[in-house]
Formats: sequence, structure tokens, C-alpha cells
Amino acid sequence: MNYPSKVIEDAVNEFSKFPGIGKKTALRLVLHLLKGDERHITAMGDVMARLKTDIHYCQKCGNIADADLCGICNSHNRVQTTVCLVEDLRDVMAIENTGQYTGVYHILGGLISPIDGVGPEDLRINELIERIQADGIEEVIMALSATMEGDTTVFYVSKKLKEKNIKITSISRGIAFGGELEYADEITLGRSIVNRIPYSA
Amino acid sequence: MNYPSKVIEDAVNEFSKFPGIGKKTALRLVLHLLKGDERHITAMGDVMARLKTDIHYCQKCGNIADADLCGICNSHNRVQTTVCLVEDLRDVMAIENTGQYTGVYHILGGLISPIDGVGPEDLRINELIERIQADGIEEVIMALSATMEGDTTVFYVSKKLKEKNIKITSISRGIAFGGELEYADEITLGRSIVNRIPYSA
Repeated sequence: MNYPSKVIEDAVNEFSKFPGIGKKTALRLVLHLLKGDERHITAMGDVMARLKTDIHYCQKCGNIADADLCGICNSHNRVQTTVCLVEDLRDVMAIENTGQYTGVYHILGGLISPIDGVGPEDLRINELIERIQADGIEEVIMALSATMEGDTTVFYVSKKLKEKNIKITSISRGIAFGGELEYADEITLGRSIVNRIPYSA
Repeated sequence: MNYPSKVIEDAVNEFSKFPGIGKKTALRLVLHLLKGDERHITAMGDVMARLKTDIHYCQKCGNIADADLCGICNSHNRVQTTVCLVEDLRDVMAIENTGQYTGVYHILGGLISPIDGVGPEDLRINELIERIQADGIEEVIMALSATMEGDTTVFYVSKKLKEKNIKITSISRGIAFGGELEYADEITLGRSIVNRIPYSA
């Protein structure tokens, strides 16, 4: 595409570096900025500056935080000996939204994926192991995606944790509540029968 | 949603002001920035600064330009007396990509849309009328969207141009080249029969 201005071209190039945003969408976003209130451009610029300087990571769980410890690791209302292992911040927010979990988290920062060049040393696995002794962790809940990469990571981490003599659990898998059997995928349905649980009314 | 950090929350709010980007997508984009190369954040910040200061508008056609005149209005290879009336920059880029047009453009900056509070005075219609005399324009080609707003705008502009004694044309409408009849919408198909053209082999 031929852009009428170098600024527009550069802006489109930067916006199209985001996942799921192509050149056409990027141009639409840039024109939205130009057509709209100039304060939006200013605010976007400010936010970029703050993303560089104001982002802290919790020294315990690795979550993004405003201080040295995140609100969850710093809370007296959370069970600090139960740790839920998740891939990233979005999983923490999803679990927090349920309001069902009272423990703390540990953020891996990714999943083992040889095809993307991500090995165990790129993830926060050693930090988890150090934390188990330092904080007296009693249970680690595996809450990673049910994908090839997630399963590999769960397998690797659980092997590393084996000698630590702690409880290792996993979030339950099966047919979603409210889900209809006929629309469930074969693997989930098959495994939900094999791994059936005692009925409690 | 509860964000673990104020910076993240502000960044998500700014990103979700863009059309078609909700809170979840915005969070994905922000995390992409944080996970990736810091140079992307720097480049985004630079681009925001330049969008505020380095954007010029062509004094003739109103297109975004790097100087006082855009490359098209400044070119000796373009017919400066034929003007194609378009809504915005994206339409210019689409027509330029065809390589079929040798005239110049006039950018309206929108379409008349009472429901969105956009009236004729918000568009660059007076600039077009002034330009017709100043530049000796001989033909105005209407290339606006075939929507209610587009048709209203064409009607308004053509009425304003009536007394100027210039040729007013419109881009042709009909079944797309390569398009199959059975998939064409009723209105387009109907009008393409009513407005049929002499066959030339």
C-alpha cells in the first residue's frame, strides 16, 4: 500500500505488529486517532511511557503489580500455602472473577513449547521451587491450558515437584456446567466418562 | 474486571476506546506489548508524539500529507481539472491501488448523517466549491459509499454544484466483475437491470 504520509505509514506499521491486527485494521485505528479527540493520542502516549517505567512485577508470584508485592500475595485473607500455577495475568483475572479461590498464584510467564523456542529455563519454574521451601507451600494446583504445551508443562513441573513432598492437584476437566452432551467434543466427553466421579446429591 | 495494576487498567481503557476493540482484546494487546520487545513500546510512544505534531493536511484536497500539498495535488502527471470526491483517506488509497485514475481527489472528511450529528457544515463542501473556481475544475466524480448517508451527501453536493456548470459523474454501480448473479443482493441486481448499458464487444 502507498501511504500519503510517512507518519501514517510508521503508525500503521507499529499498530500492525499487534497480534490479530493487519494493515487495514491498523489504518482504521490510526485514522480513528486522527479523527477523534486529540486527548486520546496524548493518553496513548502517556500510557506507553508508563508501560516502560511504572510496571513492577510481584517478587513472589510474578504478577504485574504496582508495588514489590501484588495485592493477592500481600493479603492476609488469602491462604499463602496454596499456590495456583497459571500461564499469565489473564488466567489470574479469570480465576479471581469466579470469587471461588482463596489461595495465591504463581505465574509461569508461558508454557513449554519447543516449536516456539520456549524451554523450561524461560519460565518461572525455578522461582516456584524456591518459593515452595521459602513460603512453606503445601499444595500446588495446576491450572494450565489443556493443550499439548500445557500438558507438557504440567508434566515437567510435577516431575520437578515430586521430591518436595507436597500435594499436587489439577483443576477438574470435563463437560462444562450447563453444557449439552451432544455439542461436547469427543475427547472431553470420552475422558469425562473414563474419569467419572462419585455422585453427591 | 479487577486489574492487578493501575497502569494496566489505564492502558486497557485507552486501547478499548478504539472501534472494534473490547476490554479483553485490549488486555491482550497490552500484555503483548509487555511480553515483547521494549522497542515496540518506545516506537508506539514516538508514533503518538508524531501523530500530534507531524500531521499536515493538503491545502487543496484535504488529504493527509507530509507537506503543504500532497503528492497527488503536487504531481504534474495528474489531471488537475478532474476531481474525485471521496469520504476519507482510505478511499483514496483504494482508488490509487487500482492504478486506473489519473485525476486528483477531494476529501470530504465524512458523510452527512443527522443521526450522528454530522451536517454539511462539518464536511469540506465549501472548500470543494471554492476549489472549482480557483482551479478551473471541469468534472467532479462522486465516489461515495452507496449508503443512505452517501446518497444524501451526493444529492446535497450535486445540488450545490448545479449552477457551477461543470460535469458531475458517479462511479458505476452494478454486479461486481467476476461476481455471480445468484449471490448478488436484490437491490444491486434490480438496479443493474434498470440501469443497463449498451453492450460493447
